[in-house]
Formats: sequence, C-alpha cells, structure tokens
Amino acid sequence: MKKDHVRLFIPGPVEVAPEVLEAMTQPMIGHRSKEYSDLQRSATEKMRKLMYTDKMIVFATSSGTGLLETAIRNTTKKKAIVFSVGAFGNRWYNIAKKNGIPADKHEVEWGEAITPEMIDKYLSTGDYDVIALTHNETSTGVMNPVEELAEVINKYPDVVWIMDAVSSLSGAKIEVDKLGVDFCLTSSQKALAMPPGLSIASVSDKALDRAREVENRGFYFDLLRLEKYIKERDHQYPTTPTIPHMYGIDKQLDRILEEGIENRFKRHAQMAEYVRDWAKEHFDLFADERYLSDTVTCVKNTRGIDVPKLNKELRKRKMVIANGYGNLKNDTFRIAHMGETTMEDIKNLLENIEDILNF
Amino acid sequence: MKKDHVRLFIPGPVEVAPEVLEAMTQPMIGHRSKEYSDLQRSATEKMRKLMYTDKMIVFATSSGTGLLETAIRNTTKKKAIVFSVGAFGNRWYNIAKKNGIPADKHEVEWGEAITPEMIDKYLSTGDYDVIALTHNETSTGVMNPVEELAEVINKYPDVVWIMDAVSSLSGAKIEVDKLGVDFCLTSSQKALAMPPGLSIASVSDKALDRAREVENRGFYFDLLRLEKYIKERDHQYPTTPTIPHMYGIDKQLDRILEEGIENRFKRHAQMAEYVRDWAKEHFDLFADERYLSDTVTCVKNTRGIDVPKLNKELRKRKMVIANGYGNLKNDTFRIAHMGETTMEDIKNLLENIEDILNF
Repeated sequence: MKKDHVRLFIPGPVEVAPEVLEAMTQPMIGHRSKEYSDLQRSATEKMRKLMYTDKMIVFATSSGTGLLETAIRNTTKKKAIVFSVGAFGNRWYNIAKKNGIPADKHEVEWGEAITPEMIDKYLSTGDYDVIALTHNETSTGVMNPVEELAEVINKYPDVVWIMDAVSSLSGAKIEVDKLGVDFCLTSSQKALAMPPGLSIASVSDKALDRAREVENRGFYFDLLRLEKYIKERDHQYPTTPTIPHMYGIDKQLDRILEEGIENRFKRHAQMAEYVRDWAKEHFDLFADERYLSDTVTCVKNTRGIDVPKLNKELRKRKMVIANGYGNLKNDTFRIAHMGETTMEDIKNLLENIEDILNF
Repeated sequence: MKKDHVRLFIPGPVEVAPEVLEAMTQPMIGHRSKEYSDLQRSATEKMRKLMYTDKMIVFATSSGTGLLETAIRNTTKKKAIVFSVGAFGNRWYNIAKKNGIPADKHEVEWGEAITPEMIDKYLSTGDYDVIALTHNETSTGVMNPVEELAEVINKYPDVVWIMDAVSSLSGAKIEVDKLGVDFCLTSSQKALAMPPGLSIASVSDKALDRAREVENRGFYFDLLRLEKYIKERDHQYPTTPTIPHMYGIDKQLDRILEEGIENRFKRHAQMAEYVRDWAKEHFDLFADERYLSDTVTCVKNTRGIDVPKLNKELRKRKMVIANGYGNLKNDTFRIAHMGETTMEDIKNLLENIEDILNF
C-alpha cells in the first residue's frame, strides 16, 4: 500500500528523492565482500568533502542517538561538560548519566545560545576532558556560533570536542577540521535527506587515542571496533550494516555534490530567511535572532493559534509541520526547511498556512 | 548503478523479494504520527504469530548484535551464564565483558550442542540469574535442541532466559511462550529475508521486571525506554526508527503468513536435508548430526578443496557461498538455505558446484 503522500516540513524525517529510494532497492551483497568495501569507501570519500575533513568516517546502523552515546561513552575519561541549548542537549547529558559517565551540564534558557565565556569558565577549571556541544537544536531553532566557540575550545588541546550536528550537517557549513571538532556526528533523516536508519560521524585521531584510554566503551558502539573494521577490513562495519542505506547515502551524496555543497548551504539559508521574515510578520521568532538555525525555524505562537488544528487542515492539503517540542508544545510550532525542500515548497506551505488561518 | 546480481547463499545477508524492496521505497512519514504507530502495530501483530508469543515486540534500528547487548545488559543483575557453541556465543560473552556485566561462559567443542545436563550443572549453583543461549550458530551449523533444554531451564523460575535466534527465526519453529524464552531476538537479514538494518525481539514481563532492578542499562538500548515508547506512545520507538525497514518487514510478514508459517519451516527443513545428503555424499558434515541447523549447513572440507577458488568460479555464475567462519575458515564452507531460497535454487547451486569441482 503506497501511502497517500503527505509532504513533511518537520525536522526529520524529511522528503527523500525518489531516485535515492530507488537506489536503496539494489540486490543485497555480502558485507564482507570487496563490493561492500567499495561502497562504504565511496560514501566515505564523498562524506569527507561535505564535512571538510580528512578524518575517519563512521557509518553506523542506528539513529543519531546511537552515535551521541558512542561519542560521549568512548571519549570521556575524566569528566564531560555538556552544553545544552534544549531538548537534545539535555538528552546527551542523560545518555552520559545512564551509562555511568561522569558529566556536568550547563543549560541555557531555551532560545539562547552558548557563548565563548561560558565555555571558558568550565574548561579553565581543568576538570573536563570532553566538551559536548549541540550545533543545531531542533527544539528551539538555535544554531550555536561554532566558529566563535572553536577559538576558546581550541585553547584547551587536551579536551576532546564532540558535536551533535544531527539536524544541520549538509544544511549549513561545518568545516570540521578547521574548527577542530574531534567527533562530529549526524543522522541520515535531516538535512542529508535520506530515510532514517543511518548515522554518520567523523572521528579524529585525538578522539581515537582517547578511546584507547577508556575502558567502559561497550560493544555495539565501541569506537575501537568501528575503527578496526574501517582500517583493517578496508571500510567495513563490525556487524552487518544497513546495506540499503549505504546504497542510498552513496547516491544521495552524488546528488549533493552535483548541486554543489555551497549551493546547498545557500539554498538552506535562503529558505530560512524567507521563513523567518514570514514568522516575524505574522508571529515572532522563539530563538535569539543572532543564533537562528538555517534548517528549522521555531515560531513563537504569539497569536495562540491551535497548532494541531492547523496541522489537521494542512494534512488535507498533503503537507505537515511540527508542533513545539516537549515543554514548548503549545507555545511554538516549527517549520523545517532542510534537505531537498525548495523555496517553492516553502512558499507553497506558507501560502497554505495563511489561507487556512485567514491572514 | 544497479549491481550485476549475484545470488547469495551465505548466512546473511540473503536474497530479498523485489516487492519487499519496493515496499521500502514508500514516502517518509513522521515517526510520532498515528500512521507510524499503525505501521509498527501491524508488524507487531504479525511478528507475534511468527514467534508464537503474545509478548511485547521490540523493533530496533541496529544489527542483531545491538539486541544481544540489550538483552544481556538489561537483564543481568547477579550474573549471566553464556552457553556458547561457536563464534556468536563467544561474541555474546564478550559483549557482557565489554559492558562490565558479570558473566561466565561455558563453551563446548565447536560442532557440539548444549545438553540439559550442562545447563542444570550451572543453574543449580544458584549463582546465575540469566541464561544466554544461541539457538542457531552459523559458524558451526549447530541448532541447539531448545525444547529439551527448556525443560531444565524452566526448573529455575528466577532465571531470565535470553536467546539468540538471529539466524533461525522464521526458518525453524520457535514457540517462544511455550518454551518460556524471556527475550528472543532475531535480525532482519537472515531467515526473515529482509535487508540488514533491523533487529527484532519478543520480551516477557519477567525480563522487563528484571530490567527495572538493573541500573546500568545504557540509553540507546535501554529496554525500559523501548517499553515506554511501545506502551505509552502506542507502538513507537524512542528515537527515529528505520522507516524503510518497518515498511519492508510489514510487507515481508504478509508474504510469510501467506506462504504459511509451517510451510515455511517445512521448506527450510527440506532444503537442509537435501544439502546435508549432498554434503555427506561428497564431503562430510561439521556438526553433530543430532543437532543440525535447518537454515545453514557447515560442510567439513574433507577433500581440501580451495573454497575461495570455488567461490570465484561460482561468482562468474552469479552465485556465492560462504567460507568457514574464523578458525574454521579453511576447514569448512557453509551453504545457507534460508529466507526466500527455494529447493530449485539449492539444486541449481549444488549442480554448479559439482560442475566446477568435476564431481
């Protein structure tokens, strides 16, 4: 039963190009074959371009949360400081706690971003050997100013920088090596515009060296096992990988490189600007205007509209947006502008919202 | 680039029906929508029939190894005894060790099976609150006699029984509730004939109650979070699930139920018998003849044939078998007869092997 197609303007899953879905239907191959290594190596090389890195690339069969766990569990020897700007930052801290990993959390008021001063305050104590930072927080629509933050983080060469770029990578420029991010992770179903089921990370030698000193790394998400199969088995996975997603990402990365990485970022920025202008005209923005996300806009529901009702009407028109996350459920709504979404799609969505709300 | 299709007779990944791959290409949906709940609930109900259970069903975005970790990490409070009949039993023990979980291992000589006496010896000490058992071991071609073993395991009501049915479920009858298995796990890319990327388990209340007493459960594979999203969110997943696989398994379970579960088991048994007879005629069987697997046959390479060379020739004919696993690499080769493979496929394969080897 093919679903009656409702277009998604939620911050993941997102629309996937039919030719990418088609690429995922190729016949299975053995995961210990040269064919498979060729596939993962091909996707690795393309991923490196998109991430501006020459580091090791991990493709994991899990959601992004799996790699959040991998990152903090494998690199924290002393203690991690988790900077939270919303729900997903808080989740990262919980992941640490649930795994018995020493960690502290600094949470800002939702809508605000992390500042260099905050980071300096914690790292200068010498208590922490890991800093965990959310690049883009979908619950609040905040994108942290990582270029600025990198300067202070890099003052502390013994600290491993792990970054959650789940909802921004390929929708905003993240120059991993230039910034000095040691473990930059993302997920397939956001700006990468793939189906969910695959998560991806770049991993620096510094992160790997740290993992060699950490004992409680687990098994499925053990970074050193992942490394072993990438390096000793020529781009393989310790267990059977999600082969359809590997076919898919390889194809989708071709499409992204064809569009042009910079063009892709520009398209996201333009859509973001359009949605922000619209939001300011009719409602307000939830996040600090200096730190707005290029992939998702969190709109402050200043008119007190009934978001579920709006979404119900939108669904009839074969499109859907997201309500607020967690505590913000009724106070905000969110419009994602990521992945393969175009300005035309966005204009069409906003016109329909205006029509439904009688603007 | 559509791959030139090589038919897989390896113990996973296996051939996938084109209509299942096609089902996986449906447009994305939100994972917090009613549509998604409907999908997971539908797959749950069908999975229960196949597993002869009315217990909670978990669909996890990971390989089977992820659920091996989930099972032993969430249910071991005192100590686990892992019964190993080969590489995957040993892996399970390692998973426990790598997660700091108290565990002992009893490993039999490869090719042998577990006996009720072995189990009784360990459980009667009162030292263990978890028994981990591999139902079907692909490295040796052994299928443990679980009906017989269940009798002794059930003498110990405080022991949680976790079982690895990765390479057998849907290829052999496993009456989960009748046997009394508390956590029975499998993976998509074996007898279920799906692409890799999804793992599935039935979980008893006893296993869940045990998890409530265990602290070090982690996050991504925390059984109680999985339970929460299944029960409180009406069949959802704590993070974004692999939606293509959920479409796929729902479709594939329709196909399995259409074939008839018992018919499917019979087909596997018939293929297994045919391969065994052939193996005994030309080589020998590696495993104890009383405990042979219905999904994969491990052939003792008594003629000392060059397996990689044989496989190279087979590849030219668009088919491939598996060499021996680990230490058995050169001493055995393995022929999988699972999933959608038919007797005709098997006959064709064996005729081609005979032709290549000049029998």
